[in-house]
Amino acid sequence: MTMENYKLFLFTLSSACVVGILAIIFVLRWVLHFQPGLGWDGGLAEFNWHPVLNVCGFIILQALAIIVYRLPWSWKRSKLTMKIIHASLNLVAYIFAVVATVAVFDYHNLSKIPNMYSLHSWIGMVTLILYCLQLVLGFGLYLMPSTPISWRAAFMPIHVYSGLLLFTSVIAVALMGITEKLIFSLTNPKYNSSPPEAIFVNILGLFLVVFGALILWIATRQSWKRPSEQTLHSLNSKGGDEDGTRVSTVLSQLSDGTEGEAVGETRKRNNKLDDRVN
Amino acid sequence: MTMENYKLFLFTLSSACVVGILAIIFVLRWVLHFQPGLGWDGGLAEFNWHPVLNVCGFIILQALAIIVYRLPWSWKRSKLTMKIIHASLNLVAYIFAVVATVAVFDYHNLSKIPNMYSLHSWIGMVTLILYCLQLVLGFGLYLMPSTPISWRAAFMPIHVYSGLLLFTSVIAVALMGITEKLIFSLTNPKYNSSPPEAIFVNILGLFLVVFGALILWIATRQSWKRPSEQTLHSLNSKGGDEDGTRVSTVLSQLSDGTEGEAVGETRKRNNKLDDRVN
Repeated sequence: MTMENYKLFLFTLSSACVVGILAIIFVLRWVLHFQPGLGWDGGLAEFNWHPVLNVCGFIILQALAIIVYRLPWSWKRSKLTMKIIHASLNLVAYIFAVVATVAVFDYHNLSKIPNMYSLHSWIGMVTLILYCLQLVLGFGLYLMPSTPISWRAAFMPIHVYSGLLLFTSVIAVALMGITEKLIFSLTNPKYNSSPPEAIFVNILGLFLVVFGALILWIATRQSWKRPSEQTLHSLNSKGGDEDGTRVSTVLSQLSDGTEGEAVGETRKRNNKLDDRVN
Repeated sequence: MTMENYKLFLFTLSSACVVGILAIIFVLRWVLHFQPGLGWDGGLAEFNWHPVLNVCGFIILQALAIIVYRLPWSWKRSKLTMKIIHASLNLVAYIFAVVATVAVFDYHNLSKIPNMYSLHSWIGMVTLILYCLQLVLGFGLYLMPSTPISWRAAFMPIHVYSGLLLFTSVIAVALMGITEKLIFSLTNPKYNSSPPEAIFVNILGLFLVVFGALILWIATRQSWKRPSEQTLHSLNSKGGDEDGTRVSTVLSQLSDGTEGEAVGETRKRNNKLDDRVN
């Protein structure tokens, strides 16, 4: 199965990978070179896990979870396998984000800094809670075999929209976090005199925005969507029995290039369902 | 012409209006009650135009420009009229944003605060420049009658995506701006002791996020798109001549409920073009 505009897809994906890797390098260099490294002592070294885990997990891993269905080399895998990969990546991203949050609470508590006063913390916490809800609902709707297909279809637009909104929110929260941290940690010289750390971390912020923009572009191109035949096959092989046989016949006819009236109609109907549930 | 899920549309739109108006009230109360009001003296009162104009113009007016095609009561207007309204709203939003930027530069210059050092200012300036580019390209592509339809179609996905990305970026920049301003202006009591101004302006930030989420939901629902028949009519009334007559016939047949093979095919072909250029 070939993808429309495959070269453009590869270019966009490669760009996202390069910018994503640069963001990881920059956040690591920030905490290891400009800040006092990583540790778990309740001090600044523990705080530093906060940006590192959020960039690597809550942003990069979540991005991977979002676009994993769109990688053409994954199209041979069953839909169920891809759903499990999608859910697992999101779960790991969530765990990273929770540990990142624990790190900052530990640091605040030991340093007698109040928790949850800033807009960064408010939106960050709301995002973390809604991400957890999205995970639970996503599991219940799309990985529990007993969930009716009609429910899956009805909730799919909300699931997709919420996923992209949460991803965007996490990046916005990271930009606020960078702003806060640079103002608080740069005292001599101050942030407004643009010392090397300020420039370096601002660039990290730009990388996160460009990375987010590339991922959202990939995730919203209709022509780069996982093809419906694969989905059909997955939906029906889970359903099994006689309906599965009918769909397999339809699939084989489609792949043979035979597309009579009945087959065309079946494909139209199934594509319509497919558009709604995937 | 009725809209699918019209009640849900009205509810979402009304919610966006309420939250948008609340955001305007909150930003005005912030600068008039908690901060030293508005003025044009190079001091804090001039700075205060920065959040006010950005919230009212760069966020609220831009949002209106984005969803103006989706208001069902605008569907009777020609596509050209709607394009002019869309472009004008974006232009006014841009002027608001430019004046907002001048205000902050004036304030910085008089107070000897460096310009353009923060991530907020970097991303804000990039957004402002790209928004100007989007305006110019949008005008050249969709309001210059001489621009080939094929160009319009080819650039439409980029135009739509860029518009939504810029809107999202402006909100992210506003959140960073709020974070900066609260840290700098709240000194006794400080931001981290959550004085009333801190809570109040954090709520403004939440309103902006919710407003953005509602606008993005409205803007990305395929079923709430301006219907293709209207677009067809507009495209062809601008083109005029014999093709226009053919399309008018098709339209009248469609509105009569007559949908033979030829009419169906014409509609399919035209809808396809329509999907690409609008």
